[in-house]
Amino acid sequence: MAAAGGASGAPSDELEKLRFLTPELAEAVASKFGTPTYVYDMGTLTASAKQALAFPNAFGLTVRYAMKASPNAAILKLFNSLGLHVDASSGYEIQRAMRAGVPASHISLSSQELPPDFDKYVAQGVQINACSVSQLERFGQKCPGGKVGLRFNPGVGSGGTGKTNVGGPSSAFGIWHELLPEVKAVVAKHNLEVVRIHTHIGSGSDPAVWQNVATLSLNLVREFPKVVTLNLGGGYKVGRMSYEASTDLLKIGAPVQKKFEEFAQETGRKLHLEVEPGTFLVANAGALVCAIQDKTSTSAHTFLKLDAGMTEVLRPSLYGAQHPLIVIPKDKARAGQTVSYVVVGHCCESGDLLTPAPGEADTIAERKLTSAEIGDLVVVEGSGAYCAGMSTKNYNSFPEAPEVMHAPGGTFHLIRQRQTLEQALQNELDLPASALP
Amino acid sequence: MAAAGGASGAPSDELEKLRFLTPELAEAVASKFGTPTYVYDMGTLTASAKQALAFPNAFGLTVRYAMKASPNAAILKLFNSLGLHVDASSGYEIQRAMRAGVPASHISLSSQELPPDFDKYVAQGVQINACSVSQLERFGQKCPGGKVGLRFNPGVGSGGTGKTNVGGPSSAFGIWHELLPEVKAVVAKHNLEVVRIHTHIGSGSDPAVWQNVATLSLNLVREFPKVVTLNLGGGYKVGRMSYEASTDLLKIGAPVQKKFEEFAQETGRKLHLEVEPGTFLVANAGALVCAIQDKTSTSAHTFLKLDAGMTEVLRPSLYGAQHPLIVIPKDKARAGQTVSYVVVGHCCESGDLLTPAPGEADTIAERKLTSAEIGDLVVVEGSGAYCAGMSTKNYNSFPEAPEVMHAPGGTFHLIRQRQTLEQALQNELDLPASALP
Repeated sequence: MAAAGGASGAPSDELEKLRFLTPELAEAVASKFGTPTYVYDMGTLTASAKQALAFPNAFGLTVRYAMKASPNAAILKLFNSLGLHVDASSGYEIQRAMRAGVPASHISLSSQELPPDFDKYVAQGVQINACSVSQLERFGQKCPGGKVGLRFNPGVGSGGTGKTNVGGPSSAFGIWHELLPEVKAVVAKHNLEVVRIHTHIGSGSDPAVWQNVATLSLNLVREFPKVVTLNLGGGYKVGRMSYEASTDLLKIGAPVQKKFEEFAQETGRKLHLEVEPGTFLVANAGALVCAIQDKTSTSAHTFLKLDAGMTEVLRPSLYGAQHPLIVIPKDKARAGQTVSYVVVGHCCESGDLLTPAPGEADTIAERKLTSAEIGDLVVVEGSGAYCAGMSTKNYNSFPEAPEVMHAPGGTFHLIRQRQTLEQALQNELDLPASALP
Repeated sequence: MAAAGGASGAPSDELEKLRFLTPELAEAVASKFGTPTYVYDMGTLTASAKQALAFPNAFGLTVRYAMKASPNAAILKLFNSLGLHVDASSGYEIQRAMRAGVPASHISLSSQELPPDFDKYVAQGVQINACSVSQLERFGQKCPGGKVGLRFNPGVGSGGTGKTNVGGPSSAFGIWHELLPEVKAVVAKHNLEVVRIHTHIGSGSDPAVWQNVATLSLNLVREFPKVVTLNLGGGYKVGRMSYEASTDLLKIGAPVQKKFEEFAQETGRKLHLEVEPGTFLVANAGALVCAIQDKTSTSAHTFLKLDAGMTEVLRPSLYGAQHPLIVIPKDKARAGQTVSYVVVGHCCESGDLLTPAPGEADTIAERKLTSAEIGDLVVVEGSGAYCAGMSTKNYNSFPEAPEVMHAPGGTFHLIRQRQTLEQALQNELDLPASALP
């Protein structure tokens, strides 16, 4: 489950750098596919997948890609080929993963909304984690005697009280841990076999928090003797800005591994570990290549206006999230000069802002960038997660941007074409003239 | 230009009421079109249009619908038939309006991003308001000697300093008023005829603010002797909640009319007035009919989970905006009972929240509603503006919801079909297996 915000760190005035692109590659993308275009880097995706597959574990590991972060079939195929499984958050995501060639048995569903036809997916081999007592009841009715996972809210979260969160009493996600008796009653009624416990609280990068979550989760495992898998979810904080800290999987995983080992010594049960990274796998493996299409000023600020915005990268408007912005000057003589700008998107919306104050979506801030002119490209780095997958598509009637995969060796594969206006309107039906007043 | 937030007023614990729907009509929508479905009411749209057309004016009025608020062709057709013109915010919106039958001469463009082929639209009769000096320069290069409008930022806004805004030094919209000499130089260079002045600062509901904006705007008109039209934009605050105040057009318009009359007495110039309402015309003429698909609780809250969310109504997640939520209990015996709930959407996202604290998108709040159960319908009122037009479409791979027009007499016309997963994926291209590592 995705939670607001990024990793913390002292904001720095240092210019951000391109990650996997070079100025020449960004220009090649713009010239071949136009702007704005999302670019993903197969090398970075592969390296992230391998890092995730090295998550410390005592008795086996499954890494599930939380596909809502970026659900393009090409990314699903790549991760499937590297041995990752899939965490789906809706019935539609299950279908999407299967179309991309992910075996049903490699897909598990943890959703706020259990699809009506979930039993069809169960029959194909998809694993379901019941995320509420009523989901469990529905599972039991349609699949009596079946194997099921339980997603619990263990009672702690990583955010403040009353703030939106993926764990703790203010979170809507998972079965509240105190409802254990109700859960056991439903399990007994339908003769269900609980084989997985799932807890995801967006635990961040602190090993102590992970140790605590592992302990609470293992206590839930104790309640269900047939559980063989413990899924600790994802939510590993990833810095997009160079000054933001990222999660070290080896550090947070070590205490988890130790807890699993202790649990095995105590109970004889050797649990399989599952983790569900989304952001970790894709955030810094994607970039948006766009262009400066206008430059204006007031008494207070100089504004750069992109040919993209909340229609492609909503996180700054939604969370006050910070994304690196790298200007690629057409005139290389400007490369060494810096100026402070406010960068805005192309929508007629005051909140369409790429440089909010950190964590304050509606407060504008300046960012020191390479001296920029109309026609320069801008690369919005850190755009691999929750950008193409979560944006205000078609706002101001702008079409969806294309997606491109950058393969080792330098080939760019178009993996999603730019939408046409015709497509955006294809479901509109004519209102008969006789219906008008 | 759309700005964050709604009208202010003391929050009330009163249950909100259905606007144009009845429980029976909402059930008919759900049964005929499924949930979630947007419904617009032709009667309310027509009444709002007539109110806008009664905006006080001295020497003539054009009301332009700010179509980004809700760009469905049926709404455009209806407003066109009622005599409204169109304010487009992108080249794509121009195309969309023309496809819906709006004459090109009834469309004006005020955009953050001037489309490359704007001169094609000018040739067809579309009016352009240059929103920056560089837009004006581009206009002059392609349309020398042409008639043009100028959107100015008159130096005042309606929000606080440093906050996102559609006017004042922290706003990226329009030409900063102190750039008048540069503007005049470009006008002279290309022999342009400035026929319109446009200022939009999201002036809200205070007549004194409107009087001030009218004065500042008329001072800009003085600088251009051939100006015949003054466009004061939109941004009329509209209460969605019953306790929120709405703008009284007669009240804010009266001082504007007076200023126009004084200006005419002084200069002999009888200016045509243009206004550009979006929210005012459609906000309370639209509702989302959705269903409660789960109900859970923690030690702190009981959560209702809808089969809709930020994928359909993003404003609460983006601005902390308040929308009326009306539960339609299946069992009418519950109609008189109330319970406090937190209402969340169906996305695996902690910010997918329908009941944020007012103005605080990431703080959860409870709302007193009719006692609710799984399977009950919920009507999200005030969903006519910036909902179908501005949401995180396809997040978690949920398809776009359909739109329906409720005609007087009770007929429901489907004006947008529910998207299929196939359509959402139609632009994905296969990554060749040979490209995989």
